[in-house]
Amino acid sequence: MSISPANNHERAREQLNLVFGALSNPTRRDLLAQLGRAPASISELAAPFRMSLPAVSKHLRVLERAGLVRRQIDGRVHRCTLETAPLQEAEQWLAHYRGFWTDTLEALARHVEDTE
Amino acid sequence: MSISPANNHERAREQLNLVFGALSNPTRRDLLAQLGRAPASISELAAPFRMSLPAVSKHLRVLERAGLVRRQIDGRVHRCTLETAPLQEAEQWLAHYRGFWTDTLEALARHVEDTE
Repeated sequence: MSISPANNHERAREQLNLVFGALSNPTRRDLLAQLGRAPASISELAAPFRMSLPAVSKHLRVLERAGLVRRQIDGRVHRCTLETAPLQEAEQWLAHYRGFWTDTLEALARHVEDTE
Repeated sequence: MSISPANNHERAREQLNLVFGALSNPTRRDLLAQLGRAPASISELAAPFRMSLPAVSKHLRVLERAGLVRRQIDGRVHRCTLETAPLQEAEQWLAHYRGFWTDTLEALARHVEDTE
């Protein structure tokens, strides 16, 4: 079975859906921020939040599905690591729009120069 | 009534929830891309999609709530304009993580230099 470019495109879109969906929750953003400082076990991740381990685990599963967290199981300890590649893809999508505010500022600067 | 910094922080978080939530749907991302080319009426926005006007309207309401689209009503025509400020805030959130892939590349470069 070959992978067509259309399939790749579809997969990239689906990946962005999952990443932006994962980021739409403040607890999940905080979990990513915490993992950004160091890898952590689920109990270490749960400690700063007033949350049960199952509730944290549920958020982690959403992050895992989006490819943002990798979980390594070592005996009874689940070690979580941040994966930044999907964040980079989300940033690339947003970067298309960066031109808008830059262009607006440049147009404003030109306008000010022209009128002076 | 004064607005405390805590309230502002809470509002900024809520705004990010709505923006990332709005971006988690591919049709809504396409609508933003289309509005990025030019402002458009709802029927102009609906044309490229095989979608009913109410379905497009529903997506537009999600984008409006996130502050990404402004709707001006002129008689029976609803004119939609892209608002990029919330996208810039989302990009700023992601920019915190930009250091990760840059740092990783720099650490790799240093390691290669040290071992040579």
